[in-house]
Amino acid sequence: MADRYSEYRAVAGQLGVSAVALVPGPNFMRLLHKDFHVNERPLVVVIPQSGPPAAIVPNLELSSFALVKFEGEVFDWRDQTGYQGAFDALARSMPLDSLAVEGQTMRVFVHHAFAAANKGIRITDGEKAISSLRICKSPDEIKILEEAIRISEAALHDTLEQVRVGLTEAQVEQILAQALFAHGAEGFAFRPIVAADDNSARAHATARADYRIAAGDALLLDFGARWGGFCADVTRTVFVGEPGAEARDVYATVLAANAKAREITRPGLTAHEVDDAVISILEASAYADRIRTKTGHGLGRAIHEEPYIMRGNQQVLRAGMVFTDEPGLYRLGGFGVRIEDDILVTESGCRSLTTFPREIMIVG
Amino acid sequence: MADRYSEYRAVAGQLGVSAVALVPGPNFMRLLHKDFHVNERPLVVVIPQSGPPAAIVPNLELSSFALVKFEGEVFDWRDQTGYQGAFDALARSMPLDSLAVEGQTMRVFVHHAFAAANKGIRITDGEKAISSLRICKSPDEIKILEEAIRISEAALHDTLEQVRVGLTEAQVEQILAQALFAHGAEGFAFRPIVAADDNSARAHATARADYRIAAGDALLLDFGARWGGFCADVTRTVFVGEPGAEARDVYATVLAANAKAREITRPGLTAHEVDDAVISILEASAYADRIRTKTGHGLGRAIHEEPYIMRGNQQVLRAGMVFTDEPGLYRLGGFGVRIEDDILVTESGCRSLTTFPREIMIVG
Repeated sequence: MADRYSEYRAVAGQLGVSAVALVPGPNFMRLLHKDFHVNERPLVVVIPQSGPPAAIVPNLELSSFALVKFEGEVFDWRDQTGYQGAFDALARSMPLDSLAVEGQTMRVFVHHAFAAANKGIRITDGEKAISSLRICKSPDEIKILEEAIRISEAALHDTLEQVRVGLTEAQVEQILAQALFAHGAEGFAFRPIVAADDNSARAHATARADYRIAAGDALLLDFGARWGGFCADVTRTVFVGEPGAEARDVYATVLAANAKAREITRPGLTAHEVDDAVISILEASAYADRIRTKTGHGLGRAIHEEPYIMRGNQQVLRAGMVFTDEPGLYRLGGFGVRIEDDILVTESGCRSLTTFPREIMIVG
Repeated sequence: MADRYSEYRAVAGQLGVSAVALVPGPNFMRLLHKDFHVNERPLVVVIPQSGPPAAIVPNLELSSFALVKFEGEVFDWRDQTGYQGAFDALARSMPLDSLAVEGQTMRVFVHHAFAAANKGIRITDGEKAISSLRICKSPDEIKILEEAIRISEAALHDTLEQVRVGLTEAQVEQILAQALFAHGAEGFAFRPIVAADDNSARAHATARADYRIAAGDALLLDFGARWGGFCADVTRTVFVGEPGAEARDVYATVLAANAKAREITRPGLTAHEVDDAVISILEASAYADRIRTKTGHGLGRAIHEEPYIMRGNQQVLRAGMVFTDEPGLYRLGGFGVRIEDDILVTESGCRSLTTFPREIMIVG
């Protein structure tokens, strides 16, 4: 029967397992269009190769779970008695000798509960195959992602207008957070990175409450709104006051690398080829020793997903894929520059969904 | 040797395993005072029963990881070659036949990487024992939590002033989010719950963009700021316009139950005894069929942690423990009322860290 579970049944077949299990997260959201808090209470949907699906649901979430209009049997459990009984009851109803799970999302206690309920079960990491169903975005999904990006770029615009010498990184993060929600964000795609001066040379810096932005600093903002279940991801590096000659040259080098991906991306190219072209520009510069990262990662319902734009990844790009184009140069103890766009692969080439200006910008 | 790892070595001994593994999350934060983005890249610290610790760190995080001043060997890895080699190298340096992990935090792909690197390894869920090190909060930690609560209550005050008939739940959530960051939040303890009318009867509702608050609605706000690594958790249920007699009576019943925990909590009482006293009040009312949840959960660096305030939990309360006191009554298809405070167990009794008024409140 063709229904909303068919693709997941096919994945189970492809992986040679009895069933696929989904926990709240990007794949669950794609299938059931409902988010749940991730906490100590397991909530799992199991889709066997044939037959109806089943679910394990905390009793106190039943009224929320009803909104997904689930087609299969639901095994609920209460805090007072614990969840293992629900896994055991599911195992009696649907004995499993093998199960593919989302290794990047499912936590170990759920894995252990399945193993305890199904003696000898083989649990494999099906993350790549399960998430590959999300790798090409539909036109409707692209519209949602564009709205997440619109919110993010509007928030960036407002934030940069407020950046001043003397503000701490943490204060700028708070301004950015407020601007994101003022423009309609439903959440963060990830905790924003607001990093000045030497902190900007760290790939994933945490904003400091004890560092005040100084004249001449590089200021890197890497963040994104979550909206409609999709994640934006934008980075701009600006300068607070006039940058020096080295900073200008580094910026121009990174921008040339960033532009390269936007120029060459088209269906049929591999992720390897895009990264190789981008990184080659950085390697040919005077700053090759400042390379720390690959070109980028796919994004959609998860902030990091396939296709990873990386040398060695022979994934062929197809229309509907979206990935970040975020080369950077990082001098530890000095400063870093990263320029990040979100690129949609189209039938004829590509289109940058992010449109915020990329020219070197002086703020404050 | 007594150092910052000693307690974790003792847990490994107590659990009878070679080592304990920590991944970014509340225990990791307590030990190393540094947060990392959770993404597709494993970052793990392993603390053996004896000898120095070791870590697996993504190469691009080395400059951030340097901030934790780690005492042991670091096995780094790059996206282009993958992480399994680092787990294999760690296994050669520190062979493990058993390992306790944080089942609620570690994801399955890390579990699988340890299993692949250490043939026959026994991986046990050490969540309870590892996290028990966090169950009693120090005076300094209480101060941090109180700041998270201060931010949350200030944001609640500002938000309630802006609630009007005709706003959607999603709009109120955005007002609340902005207020949290305006008052200094570093993040959310969890995605805020803003639920009116029938949505308030769901324990963990998602704010609706298509429901406009109407006169007479119950409006439940359950949320918390994250600050300094600690999570606040506050719920108030207000009425938008004059509530009816049933709503007033339900509110009074829930408030009596909430007050009970604040009256009786003291060291030496069990979690069972607190929950039993609270729930008994609800059971003795005309609304016993609206009970859906236990009294509450511990909170601190995690939003849900020990001690769970639940019948059957014989955990003895001790000074320094903090838990939520959040009884509620929920009529599906009707409305729900929950009143939630954060209670600190003191030497002589208890103190509510939350101080926002609990009397029935009419807004808009």
